[in-house]
Amino acid sequence: MSIAVRHLDTSSATFEADFQRVLHWSAETDAEIETRVADILADVKARGDAAVLANTARFDRLDVADMAALELTRDELKAAFDAITPAQRHALETAARRVRSYHERQLQACGLSWRYHDEDGTLLGQKVTPLDRVGIYVPGGKAAYPSSVLMNALPAHVAGVGEIIMVVPTPGGERNPLVLAAAYVAGVSRAFTIGGAQAIAALAYGTDRIPRVDKITGPGNAYVASAKRRVFGQVGIDMIAGPSEILVLADGTTPPDWVAMDLFSQAEHDELAQSILLCPDVAYLDAVHAAMDRLIDAMPRRQVIRASLEGRGALIHTRSMEEACEISNRIAPEHLEVSSADPHRWEPLLRHAGAIFLGAYTSESLGDYCAGPNHVLPTSGTARFSSPLGVYDFQKRSSLIEVSQAGAQQLGPIAAELAYGEGLQAHAQAAEFRLQR
Amino acid sequence: MSIAVRHLDTSSATFEADFQRVLHWSAETDAEIETRVADILADVKARGDAAVLANTARFDRLDVADMAALELTRDELKAAFDAITPAQRHALETAARRVRSYHERQLQACGLSWRYHDEDGTLLGQKVTPLDRVGIYVPGGKAAYPSSVLMNALPAHVAGVGEIIMVVPTPGGERNPLVLAAAYVAGVSRAFTIGGAQAIAALAYGTDRIPRVDKITGPGNAYVASAKRRVFGQVGIDMIAGPSEILVLADGTTPPDWVAMDLFSQAEHDELAQSILLCPDVAYLDAVHAAMDRLIDAMPRRQVIRASLEGRGALIHTRSMEEACEISNRIAPEHLEVSSADPHRWEPLLRHAGAIFLGAYTSESLGDYCAGPNHVLPTSGTARFSSPLGVYDFQKRSSLIEVSQAGAQQLGPIAAELAYGEGLQAHAQAAEFRLQR
Repeated sequence: MSIAVRHLDTSSATFEADFQRVLHWSAETDAEIETRVADILADVKARGDAAVLANTARFDRLDVADMAALELTRDELKAAFDAITPAQRHALETAARRVRSYHERQLQACGLSWRYHDEDGTLLGQKVTPLDRVGIYVPGGKAAYPSSVLMNALPAHVAGVGEIIMVVPTPGGERNPLVLAAAYVAGVSRAFTIGGAQAIAALAYGTDRIPRVDKITGPGNAYVASAKRRVFGQVGIDMIAGPSEILVLADGTTPPDWVAMDLFSQAEHDELAQSILLCPDVAYLDAVHAAMDRLIDAMPRRQVIRASLEGRGALIHTRSMEEACEISNRIAPEHLEVSSADPHRWEPLLRHAGAIFLGAYTSESLGDYCAGPNHVLPTSGTARFSSPLGVYDFQKRSSLIEVSQAGAQQLGPIAAELAYGEGLQAHAQAAEFRLQR
Repeated sequence: MSIAVRHLDTSSATFEADFQRVLHWSAETDAEIETRVADILADVKARGDAAVLANTARFDRLDVADMAALELTRDELKAAFDAITPAQRHALETAARRVRSYHERQLQACGLSWRYHDEDGTLLGQKVTPLDRVGIYVPGGKAAYPSSVLMNALPAHVAGVGEIIMVVPTPGGERNPLVLAAAYVAGVSRAFTIGGAQAIAALAYGTDRIPRVDKITGPGNAYVASAKRRVFGQVGIDMIAGPSEILVLADGTTPPDWVAMDLFSQAEHDELAQSILLCPDVAYLDAVHAAMDRLIDAMPRRQVIRASLEGRGALIHTRSMEEACEISNRIAPEHLEVSSADPHRWEPLLRHAGAIFLGAYTSESLGDYCAGPNHVLPTSGTARFSSPLGVYDFQKRSSLIEVSQAGAQQLGPIAAELAYGEGLQAHAQAAEFRLQR
């Protein structure tokens, strides 16, 4: 049965309305989840480890005697690494090396302190320092991704974070060996088998066993998202992730099978994931649709793929590649493939995207695992204002100012004038005290 | 009457408890405010301009016929600039020039795109682009600060933001000429005399008159803070600001009057503002206290200053400057003055602070107005994980990846191995399709 994915056409009179329906996705906050999360946070704040133990028993069906049983030792992580296949070890280590290397470039490009003197001899600059301690949340259960361990922990390492605390729920006590092996490769400092709102609370407030962190990164379910939003300010958070998305801009030169599989690779994440293809060649859109129909039955996750494509996918015929770029900017996709023989012609037109994959050989999946850039990316249009997870998320900046005696004579009267204008006389006099009498 | 500011001593047995009491400040969310803000947001989302007009009439006592009456024209801003004194014009323009210049350095240091090729010929990099449109919130009423207009708008300008929308409440219709003049100098694109949660909602959702923005920056009262927290995700926000703070590390070489006035300059903001002095010389602490007692009566805002210092201030005797630095790191202050003859000896020990002011001549107030760095800084210990407002807040990054045919042969098997390990077969096959058969 052919996949009933929507075909839209920008020339159609109903395009704008159809397009809005495709885009519509609302992270409605569920009042019941909100209440339960608020209760869990308050419980962990009040009772610490006892609350972590109780909630882990309740929500993860993991009933243990004490917190020691919820901590993964370095030896356990190493044993997991030793137990996976040599091919898996090689893949994890190669991916880790490439991800580390990219983030080291990022540190050099935008993560170093700088300072200069202006003409009055005033020293100005910015000091960049790593966070002391961060928590990384790794989902467990059906969507346990070892690659996410690397993508969260390695930028923190490169930034120079002192201590990296990983939390990963193990429902029913079932541990994912690849996740543990990835934690070993990434060199996390400590790891706990806890999850949900109780894990976020423990990291944000600290307990006897679990140290309080300065920032929490990593994706999670609705409970985790709600908890992260609530502790924001108490600790830093990276972002609130929505469903994953891919947008492919195609000029019709890439084999249709390749693009079909790229659309599948997003759709297989979950039924809310979104795959959109934009192309000015209507015959090519049909060819990709035919390829999808031909390929779907061999996919183990075909039910999820079909539900995602039929529920949220779209094949959009545009008037031109330029128009396709404009539509892409309106969507601000998480992943943007420019599947074109001439990707550098279109890249400058693309203003908003989490990651841009250029050319037919650059499948999103290469970027997801091992090209080097981070796979934690802004979703749901937030690429309009936010960025991939990076070294900069694990650093903070402090302004540096040293005004010389001469500089104080230049700046003092200006500051005093503005301070008096704002009715802040102590501000003004603090500047004036530094003037030579 | 002597100012009853706390004296603490790190050698005292009760120091730790005393210190925790000084630090304790809780941004308790007020349930009534939360409910009212949720209602206002829903109202603006549903009714747009009509809700903005109704809420502005209700909360700001500004009842006008239509939205046009709530927009400030470029001519009105220019008229305000022309009407202030020449000294004020000069001060605003000098401050703007210096702030712009510092943020241009920031753009060069950490705001530019970069790319490189790895050994397989894979192009990797990061494209940095400005936000399309931002909203800046400027408080009105008793704390209307024209300097904040410069500090929010100029980094956005330097980043290359296309459109800057300013909102400033004018309770009872009373406009602050310096705020309007600063908006003229800073070159905001459009300005509206609205405030509170209704202004945040209008910027986040857009109305017929007010364009939807991508990010909202700037401080505000409890309603504004609550509204910003709620729209976070829908739009970007800068931070949730708490009371302002200064921490002075003194080695006893700065004239006590100067330090006393610096402590006053923070205390005069409001009664919750916090001023703390750390010094290993107990006689110097006494001298600063004596200076405060001598200077207080001449301060127009003496009531606020006294309430702030007696409620939240502290003079702390430390064993050494090293210990003072460690305590400063625990506090992670918004403003940190190193009032020492040898500030560069201590600066490397200071890990967490919004802005660091080095040496006796560098009063915080010079930095507040015109040294160049931003005065919008992380408060309440959030300097542990966040940074001054900067050009980077008005930019976002997109990863760039272009894998060559040769590179795809290297990366494909790695990605496929990891994807199969995660149970994501479409990811694996998308990589394998690019392998040469």
